[in-house]
Amino acid sequence: MGKMCEESVNHVNQMFPKVDTLSFNGEGCVVPLKTAGKVITCRAAIAWGPKQPLVIEEVQVDPPQAMEVRIKITHTSLCQSDVTFSIHGDESLQAFPCIFGHEGAGIVESVGEGVTDIKEGDHVIPLFIGECGDCACCKSNKTNLCEKFNIVRNDVKEPRFSIRGKAVHHFMNTSTFSEFTVVDSKCVAKINPETPLDKACLFGCGITTGVGAALYTADIEPGSTVAIFGLGTVGLAVAEGARIRGASKIIGVDTNPNKFIKAKALGVTECINPKDHEKPIQEVITEKSEGGVDYSFECIGNTDVLYQAFLATRPALGLTVLLGVDISPRKISLHPIDLFSGRRIVATTFGGVKGKTQLPYLVEMFMNKEIRVEEFITHELPFSEINRAFELLLEGSCLRCVLHL
Amino acid sequence: MGKMCEESVNHVNQMFPKVDTLSFNGEGCVVPLKTAGKVITCRAAIAWGPKQPLVIEEVQVDPPQAMEVRIKITHTSLCQSDVTFSIHGDESLQAFPCIFGHEGAGIVESVGEGVTDIKEGDHVIPLFIGECGDCACCKSNKTNLCEKFNIVRNDVKEPRFSIRGKAVHHFMNTSTFSEFTVVDSKCVAKINPETPLDKACLFGCGITTGVGAALYTADIEPGSTVAIFGLGTVGLAVAEGARIRGASKIIGVDTNPNKFIKAKALGVTECINPKDHEKPIQEVITEKSEGGVDYSFECIGNTDVLYQAFLATRPALGLTVLLGVDISPRKISLHPIDLFSGRRIVATTFGGVKGKTQLPYLVEMFMNKEIRVEEFITHELPFSEINRAFELLLEGSCLRCVLHL
Ligand SMILES: NC(=O)c1ccc[n+]([C@@H]2O[C@H](COP(=O)([O-])OP(=O)(O)OC[C@H]3O[C@@H](n4cnc5c(N)ncnc54)[C@H](O)[C@@H]3O)[C@@H](O)[C@H]2O)c1
Ligand SMILES: NC(=O)c1ccc[n+]([C@@H]2O[C@H](COP(=O)([O-])OP(=O)(O)OC[C@H]3O[C@@H](n4cnc5c(N)ncnc54)[C@H](O)[C@@H]3O)[C@@H](O)[C@H]2O)c1
Ligand SMILES: [Zn+2]
Ligand SMILES: [Zn+2]
Ligand SMILES: [Zn+2]
Ligand SMILES: [Zn+2]
Repeated sequence: MGKMCEESVNHVNQMFPKVDTLSFNGEGCVVPLKTAGKVITCRAAIAWGPKQPLVIEEVQVDPPQAMEVRIKITHTSLCQSDVTFSIHGDESLQAFPCIFGHEGAGIVESVGEGVTDIKEGDHVIPLFIGECGDCACCKSNKTNLCEKFNIVRNDVKEPRFSIRGKAVHHFMNTSTFSEFTVVDSKCVAKINPETPLDKACLFGCGITTGVGAALYTADIEPGSTVAIFGLGTVGLAVAEGARIRGASKIIGVDTNPNKFIKAKALGVTECINPKDHEKPIQEVITEKSEGGVDYSFECIGNTDVLYQAFLATRPALGLTVLLGVDISPRKISLHPIDLFSGRRIVATTFGGVKGKTQLPYLVEMFMNKEIRVEEFITHELPFSEINRAFELLLEGSCLRCVLHL
Repeated sequence: MGKMCEESVNHVNQMFPKVDTLSFNGEGCVVPLKTAGKVITCRAAIAWGPKQPLVIEEVQVDPPQAMEVRIKITHTSLCQSDVTFSIHGDESLQAFPCIFGHEGAGIVESVGEGVTDIKEGDHVIPLFIGECGDCACCKSNKTNLCEKFNIVRNDVKEPRFSIRGKAVHHFMNTSTFSEFTVVDSKCVAKINPETPLDKACLFGCGITTGVGAALYTADIEPGSTVAIFGLGTVGLAVAEGARIRGASKIIGVDTNPNKFIKAKALGVTECINPKDHEKPIQEVITEKSEGGVDYSFECIGNTDVLYQAFLATRPALGLTVLLGVDISPRKISLHPIDLFSGRRIVATTFGGVKGKTQLPYLVEMFMNKEIRVEEFITHELPFSEINRAFELLLEGSCLRCVLHL
């Protein structure tokens, strides 16, 4: 049993003394003591409605049903998508009350009937895109978008969470802003138990999305030129992937110059603030890359920037990868003739990574020091200060803030 | 020397007796007699302006300059793109007067200085996308869009054509509506001299575009489901490619039900007229293909249909290939969220086929009876009746009309 594991368990006991559930055994890390099969009462950050601060309250978490897994979340970080669907969202996008959070890591508390690939004590990352293994998509090597456990199925009909008898909805299959969560066993990646969970949680979304977009979706070749729009965690994780693949030029674009120091430390070769230029940013990049970059990544969630990113790629060969989520009704300003330039555009979710079969390898790359993660963690806070973590992300002064549950 | 070749030469002598230029030798097929190095006076169909009928007139064709080739066009067919840029076009798209035509075949009359891969007497297809062999695109296996000889460079600065002393512009590197044309040697594919030139001309655009889109751009796998929007030559050539790859379902969509007989003969498994359905056509196709087709091809040139074609593909795996050219300023009705479905969209020009190195193999597939071509030729006319050929295409009663020069 690793040191981290012990720490996590101490956390559980420290920060959540009421449910004294986990203890050690000789083999795995932790075993359920009294809670398996029972409803657990624990703390969760409830979103009572869109555009409202979260409220930490006691919730009831049902035992996992058949093929489900209940997880003790030890750490969760915040991603811009949590903001998008909470502070900027509305009821048409997400049912309320709900428990947000989709970038977490933890330890399996108990499993439901029929679950064979995951067991109590496993160290896991909940997946907002599952991998059923059986559907045409899971069987194809062209996509990671499982037909059954896709992000769009972001709510189970009967939530496993309730508060004072009222159902609390799940979010993106995961709901990691809770000390315990219940997810389908197809939405759980089992990882090396040596992995520190306070770092592993970033693989639940940001790191995997960015690194995966570079390695899997774009499949960047050595010597390629790359432009990254938005230097938050997702954008900088793309830079990390581009660096791993030996890109010759990694141009970073952000309107917040505070992002440039970290960006340069993470391998971005040149940072551009569009506000410093009179010319459209795509022209600036085209000049700097001798005719356009091989790969553009939109990591903001701004449809106008998406079109600029597209035009910044080189005709015939350029690929634009869309990662940022823009929920405004604005369409992409794309004329068919733009496509006849031979430029391509493709969106990626979770970096094109299949959660159960491929994510554990990315985590191994971190363990082998091939992927950096510490650099992305700018803040750590106790779970109780989750609203402060939201503020940090909104202020733009933070990459990732890891919450300790 | 093949029988076809003799026929072609007879054509030259019959239909164009004034320039008695070609004769036989023992080795190749024909050798230049008196014209090499001299200006040739011959007939061409002049487009004096957009939206006007063509006028067959005598033009002067300069000798090929360094790295250029002068070709005796024996046959040319008409493609919808000729209509787009002539009858529907304007001066912003094409300089006038000009000589249209980009789907032709012929015999090399003479070559300019420095040309080593093409010689007098070679049977050739002029290429509207050349292959310089040296640029980053030519060296990449991801694109056929040569950086130097691309369709957008559709005019040389000093045209090789003139009429009564006035320059006549080239069109799409090729200008096949002329008994003789001058093209860059990088814009010439040398083909098997046994190939009947009255069939080979269709490889100059329509057949190659459609078959190539299926084989190269989409790379259709056996058992795939396919929807083709527009059952003209381009659409039906896609069907031919899909049949070659063993597609399990080839759904054809056209508003002109007269196209359905030929379509079925060419392997389209089901024909749909959108006018027969109340539901949007994408819903009809989604039902017929159990959740959307694997591949959609837009072969009309209608941006609204393009979006329908996109929605008719299956989420996560579907690929939409754009072939039709819509010159209206209308944008694609695409929201970023559409791309997050995992559907992809890509345009293809000349079917993704590299003209010099790959086109000869497609022609061989025709010679081996793997690709059908005769079925696409619904009309044949003498060159003098070129305006009638335009009418036939506009009336929708014709697939390809081959003109004999
Ligand atoms: N596709 C996926 O699977 C996936 C996964 C995670 C996150 N996302 C999305 O990716 C985006 C980025 O997420 P993040 O967590 O890194 O967010 P973040 O807020 O940390 O980073 C966004 C960056 O963009 C910059 N920015 C904002 N507007 C800009 C503009 N007009 N020009 C240039 N820079 C601008 C900001 O200063 C910030 O540095 C979000 O839209 C998020 O929802 C998508
Ligand atoms: N990308 C390329 O390299 C390339 C090459 C050649 C041609 N093209 C383009 O491909 C398109 C097709 O060329 P073609 O020569 O086969 O043309 P065509 O006119 O022979 O065929 C077009 C077909 O579309 C049908 N159609 C028209 N509107 C329709 C609608 N709303 N719904 C369904 N069907 C409809 C017509 O009835 C016709 O059968 C043209 O736009 C042409 O410019 C592109
Ligand atoms: Zn996220
Ligand atoms: Zn699946
Ligand atoms: Zn054409
Ligand atoms: Zn080239």
